[in-house]
Amino acid sequence: MKKQILGLLSDFGTKDGYVAAMKGVIYEISGSITIVDVSHGIAKQDVRNGAFVLATAAPFFPDGTVFVCVVDPGVGTKRKGIVVEGDRHLYVGPDNGILMLAAQHEGIQHVYDITNTAYIRDEISFTFHGRDIFAPVGAHLSKGIKPEEIGQEIMDYIVLSQAKVIIEFQQISGEVIHVDGFGNIITNVILEDLKQIRVKFDDLLKIQIKTQVLNVCFLETYGKTKPGEFLSLIGSSGFFEIAINQGNAALKLNVSTGDIITISRNSSSPYKKHA
Amino acid sequence: MKKQILGLLSDFGTKDGYVAAMKGVIYEISGSITIVDVSHGIAKQDVRNGAFVLATAAPFFPDGTVFVCVVDPGVGTKRKGIVVEGDRHLYVGPDNGILMLAAQHEGIQHVYDITNTAYIRDEISFTFHGRDIFAPVGAHLSKGIKPEEIGQEIMDYIVLSQAKVIIEFQQISGEVIHVDGFGNIITNVILEDLKQIRVKFDDLLKIQIKTQVLNVCFLETYGKTKPGEFLSLIGSSGFFEIAINQGNAALKLNVSTGDIITISRNSSSPYKKHA
Amino acid sequence: MKKQILGLLSDFGTKDGYVAAMKGVIYEISGSITIVDVSHGIAKQDVRNGAFVLATAAPFFPDGTVFVCVVDPGVGTKRKGIVVEGDRHLYVGPDNGILMLAAQHEGIQHVYDITNTAYIRDEISFTFHGRDIFAPVGAHLSKGIKPEEIGQEIMDYIVLSQAKVIIEFQQISGEVIHVDGFGNIITNVILEDLKQIRVKFDDLLKIQIKTQVLNVCFLETYGKTKPGEFLSLIGSSGFFEIAINQGNAALKLNVSTGDIITISRNSSSPYKKHA
Repeated sequence: MKKQILGLLSDFGTKDGYVAAMKGVIYEISGSITIVDVSHGIAKQDVRNGAFVLATAAPFFPDGTVFVCVVDPGVGTKRKGIVVEGDRHLYVGPDNGILMLAAQHEGIQHVYDITNTAYIRDEISFTFHGRDIFAPVGAHLSKGIKPEEIGQEIMDYIVLSQAKVIIEFQQISGEVIHVDGFGNIITNVILEDLKQIRVKFDDLLKIQIKTQVLNVCFLETYGKTKPGEFLSLIGSSGFFEIAINQGNAALKLNVSTGDIITISRNSSSPYKKHA
Repeated sequence: MKKQILGLLSDFGTKDGYVAAMKGVIYEISGSITIVDVSHGIAKQDVRNGAFVLATAAPFFPDGTVFVCVVDPGVGTKRKGIVVEGDRHLYVGPDNGILMLAAQHEGIQHVYDITNTAYIRDEISFTFHGRDIFAPVGAHLSKGIKPEEIGQEIMDYIVLSQAKVIIEFQQISGEVIHVDGFGNIITNVILEDLKQIRVKFDDLLKIQIKTQVLNVCFLETYGKTKPGEFLSLIGSSGFFEIAINQGNAALKLNVSTGDIITISRNSSSPYKKHA
Repeated sequence: MKKQILGLLSDFGTKDGYVAAMKGVIYEISGSITIVDVSHGIAKQDVRNGAFVLATAAPFFPDGTVFVCVVDPGVGTKRKGIVVEGDRHLYVGPDNGILMLAAQHEGIQHVYDITNTAYIRDEISFTFHGRDIFAPVGAHLSKGIKPEEIGQEIMDYIVLSQAKVIIEFQQISGEVIHVDGFGNIITNVILEDLKQIRVKFDDLLKIQIKTQVLNVCFLETYGKTKPGEFLSLIGSSGFFEIAINQGNAALKLNVSTGDIITISRNSSSPYKKHA
């Protein structure tokens, strides 16, 4: 039998005892579980950041993995706590959208409001539902409790609005959705979008980001550039990225999540056309 | 049978190989153990910080968990290494007080000086007792070795002096004992102290911290404030905290551990009284 | 039976989902494995830093541990992926030297080029071989697949050039090979080198580092100095270190990896001789 895996994600950092307290609660309920830290370095209160990181990691976990995710600026308000039953995994956390990017990606079966007090701690703090509600629910789900036993099914769960990619006049307009630890600028643009404006590998792209205009090659991989050079590529999560080989593109361009990016083939720039 | 859990806490950070070396030593002794990182981000050499973080996490771990804790500015001096047998858990580390906040909280049964060389590494470095003494002792305890086999019981172990909360003239004077990763300012004042000056939820408090005087509501939870607003509350560890909803109070007020705080009900301020 | 342990090392940091994606891949292949994070805080793209941290931790792990190490500035070039069979452990990663400091220390039996596609993911990204190649190979090795099944044995693997220690005229010249999280300055000089110029514990050393000249005692341990004082010692990994008791020597001296250091006994300085 495979070990039951529970993935934890939070914005708690690892300097305090908060993550450990959650783990203690989980082990108290299920001694044989394997806990995996997905990340505890999510930007504080940044639900979108948490949703993105979860979505990049979850697809690689075995079927049946339970993810407990706590980025929870609304703790202590009326926001619900939910369990999402996806096609492959279970997700537990606040109803603020953090679970939904990963869950939508695999397909959502049901969403349940956490109301059954049998599966949460007796004493619920006002500020730490990760420890008092989400960790114990996750541990019980890992032990085989069915999600429908946790509470009522709901339909009005929250989904994060996503920036849309717009393609017109041979130009793609998208958004920076993540800057990773290497400084790679990850956008919501995918290969299919690039194909619509007939971009091929090794093409030179004209990329506008904030007030800066760059001419950057679209390559399969870093190996085709020299250290220090810009490149653009489809990253390991399937999104269009701007990077510097062995450097930090986001720092160099002063770019952060939410910035708008436009992409066109350099050959279609007016200057080139008339040259 | 429940898995045997060993919690690790240190100020080693996670960039070096020090924590991993300890884990290797532990797995070499006990292949079936589950190691949980409580925190390795304790402020360097800060025994009080380590003691506080341990005390916030330990209560949530299953009975029988062994905690190995290494914040050890005195390594290589004559400070002892000890095992503390508490009512629920075992604690291993230097005799500098780091173990005692958690152990006192659950009740101390016995404290033993680590002297039995059968349970430590053959070669003891002068600077890394975490790897050479505390990790192997913790692993052996997890395997069922009795604490009294580790060494002689001692009575003169070190306990950290704790700042006292003083309540007089309807004013509470306490101390900042921790600033967490969210910037929440955690004090040694508890709900019982507040009750003595008849503070109730939703009261307005006058809080002096360093040279700053704040009027802050005492609330049950963040949900009753707007993002960016100050509030005060009883945090998830049972201590009085000052926070900014979705903000960083410690940064805003330039407050750090050890700063003095005074609290009174705003209605009892002289200005209000004579108004 | 002992649990099978897989150690992970990377420069990915822990804010993104990259490390978790690797863990998901590993658990998908081997549900009963124990994954240990050696470090994910290696300086970005810094192969030497990764090699050093691996070498300080690996010797303490049980025989048969598999280490998967991903500091991989050459991903997407023609650099090979390799499995190193050492006397005690197996190592998996890019062929850029990162595995070799640890492997040479224990003795290298064979090195294999990863070519057997049966043990890697079906779809290989151009930029994340940690997830798509090294993690699955490591998981399969942990399950008992023989290293020779992974690919052809090679002899022309890459070994990092190491700075040489030069001893002449009663002076040792070495190099800073690591600065740890405490700010301790770790050099490639070992006790045997110091013995060649007749250094004994408690001697005063003259140490030149960059343009600074220090008179520093060579001690067995921190305990012989006061907080804030410089000392030099043989650290827990067997290397000569310069440290400040409860302080940060590297910050104070503005020293970093690669800086040259010269050491001589202070008594042999020309000024002292003629005094």
